[in-house]
Amino acid sequence: MGRPLQTLETPALLLDEARMDRNIERMRRQVQRLGVRFRPHVKTSKCYEVARRTMEGAEGPITVSTLLEADHFAERGVKDILYAVCIAPNKIDHVLALQARGVRMSIILDSVEAARLATQRLAGRGVGVLIEIDSDGHRSGVRPDSPELLEIGRTLEAGGVPVGGVMTHAGSSYDCRSSEAIRAMAEQERAAVVQAAARLRAAGMACPVVSVGSTPTALFAGQLDGVTEVRAGVYVFFDLVMAGIGVCAVDDIALSVLATVIGHQREKGWTLLDAGWMAMSRDRGTASQPLDQGYGLVCDLAGRPLQDHILVGANQEHGIMARRPGASGEPVELQVGQQVRILPNHACSTAAQYGAYQVLDPDLRVRATWQRFSGW
Amino acid sequence: MGRPLQTLETPALLLDEARMDRNIERMRRQVQRLGVRFRPHVKTSKCYEVARRTMEGAEGPITVSTLLEADHFAERGVKDILYAVCIAPNKIDHVLALQARGVRMSIILDSVEAARLATQRLAGRGVGVLIEIDSDGHRSGVRPDSPELLEIGRTLEAGGVPVGGVMTHAGSSYDCRSSEAIRAMAEQERAAVVQAAARLRAAGMACPVVSVGSTPTALFAGQLDGVTEVRAGVYVFFDLVMAGIGVCAVDDIALSVLATVIGHQREKGWTLLDAGWMAMSRDRGTASQPLDQGYGLVCDLAGRPLQDHILVGANQEHGIMARRPGASGEPVELQVGQQVRILPNHACSTAAQYGAYQVLDPDLRVRATWQRFSGW
Repeated sequence: MGRPLQTLETPALLLDEARMDRNIERMRRQVQRLGVRFRPHVKTSKCYEVARRTMEGAEGPITVSTLLEADHFAERGVKDILYAVCIAPNKIDHVLALQARGVRMSIILDSVEAARLATQRLAGRGVGVLIEIDSDGHRSGVRPDSPELLEIGRTLEAGGVPVGGVMTHAGSSYDCRSSEAIRAMAEQERAAVVQAAARLRAAGMACPVVSVGSTPTALFAGQLDGVTEVRAGVYVFFDLVMAGIGVCAVDDIALSVLATVIGHQREKGWTLLDAGWMAMSRDRGTASQPLDQGYGLVCDLAGRPLQDHILVGANQEHGIMARRPGASGEPVELQVGQQVRILPNHACSTAAQYGAYQVLDPDLRVRATWQRFSGW
Repeated sequence: MGRPLQTLETPALLLDEARMDRNIERMRRQVQRLGVRFRPHVKTSKCYEVARRTMEGAEGPITVSTLLEADHFAERGVKDILYAVCIAPNKIDHVLALQARGVRMSIILDSVEAARLATQRLAGRGVGVLIEIDSDGHRSGVRPDSPELLEIGRTLEAGGVPVGGVMTHAGSSYDCRSSEAIRAMAEQERAAVVQAAARLRAAGMACPVVSVGSTPTALFAGQLDGVTEVRAGVYVFFDLVMAGIGVCAVDDIALSVLATVIGHQREKGWTLLDAGWMAMSRDRGTASQPLDQGYGLVCDLAGRPLQDHILVGANQEHGIMARRPGASGEPVELQVGQQVRILPNHACSTAAQYGAYQVLDPDLRVRATWQRFSGW
């Protein structure tokens, strides 16, 4: 018998285990169909118990966004880790320390400048070095058709560091507005790295790894010919941003914040909750979507949305719940002390505000508490 | 000899101790001039070493935004704590546990409903109960001229809980656009609680505490007649939001994020940094101000702004530095591996992303590391 929600101090971060397992199974089937390896990104959960269920085996592989994530998973036996942010020189000692304890580390870079710095420290050390490809213009990476791509490869190989492969992340998929658009973005992502790998290989570099990934493109890709592995992270929980682009349904979202009513401003239609931006994060990812969910969509304790009730405002420890602007009808009346659950805009940023997940069983009881970590 | 910045793995949270001490001294002089007690809010720093310097003495008083803050400071000898978020019933056991270990706890509420719940648990327990007053319509509290104010007071006293006082927070001061507007808001804040206290006293309730506070109103108040104590938190570090409303200068900001250049997209004028929204928070508090600072204002290692260079975009671990939209001239050229410091929009939310402050001495060396905590 787990602990009932009513006994938790709020705010608290709830994890619906059944929904999470369903999301993991959906990705597993898709990756199997695509016929590629899966290298889950652990930056969303930063929690071994969650990430382990997404991994092919106890040794990985995994993707990390910080070297603290690498440390944490290395301590638990993971042996194959891709650090998917372009390397800064002040992190190379840390990468080498991980490699020295038996982890196959891979890093990424996207410039001749960084390639030169990397060769000075990494020649002969066995760390995999991938070249980041810009497949959609959203952030970092070198264009797959650019002269600089080959120059980076040659700089690495001349410095004694073989090109380990190419990788890209089509972050623009988060801005797509239809399944067709996401499918097209997945093909654009695939084509970019495959083209880059072909150019490097034509120039005599082996380039064994061809890595792509984002939750939307991984789930909607039609085929991944020429790709060796796919990465994704947020699918494990999903969130309102993902629901807003049609990648999941609202009732696939496995993460919610338990909050308590602490007061009202009735003439304004406001219910005050003890979950503000510290509990939800300042993420307003749905603000640019057709349906703006404020700081989160408010649900009852069973996880059913209180139709059109969202957090319209947030201070550090106060959330202002009200009907969505323009919504008709009467606001739901809640009593002081009553609990609600709030679905987050962005699972990565909301989860980062907490030290633990309260894991819910099908009877809405807390059957376990799973620790998560933060920082660098 | 402290550690040089160049040896830190990035991102890291830097605290300029000299600036912080200057900010603390400025508030101390102002509070002295106003002739009221000072009850610093520890929610900004969540760090004993910082908060201790702002306190009148080792036993407090302090203001907290979570009961975890209360626990942390109670363990270090603080004996007088105001929990300044309307109480939720699931937190009363925790409040009583703090009171039982010798802390004089005060809580707040703003409804008859909450007053009834409180009397059931708090009669005769010695916990101070203040009524929150709405002085500016921005969030919670009961209007000082409303019939409900007296009804709340009578409900408490009839239930064996004396009205400990009134408190308010003029959060709207963050939206003021001139010193005159802030000064007027400070007077509005003062007048509201003084009126509320007078009405309660006229109805026979003692109402000893009359508490106000926000960083802008505390610093700009002309006089606080009738007020017994003032609260403020963010002044200890200041931030770009405070600079944007003229409460401080940019070079009063004591908090910055150390980041490293990891790449470029030169045709777009972008420099990629290893500090994204996880390092800065998602707070975009300056977005509604005349000067939008993006996700933060980029400075050199000495803390001097690289004129008009801000974080125009942020992903989880990537920041995109570029010239402010519309700025003229050439962007600053930085090399991969070079470090910068980024001033935050909002000190409370940026600091919350870190487990520690790296404390800088005047020679820009890290002379100490101060732990901070997060969560509830």
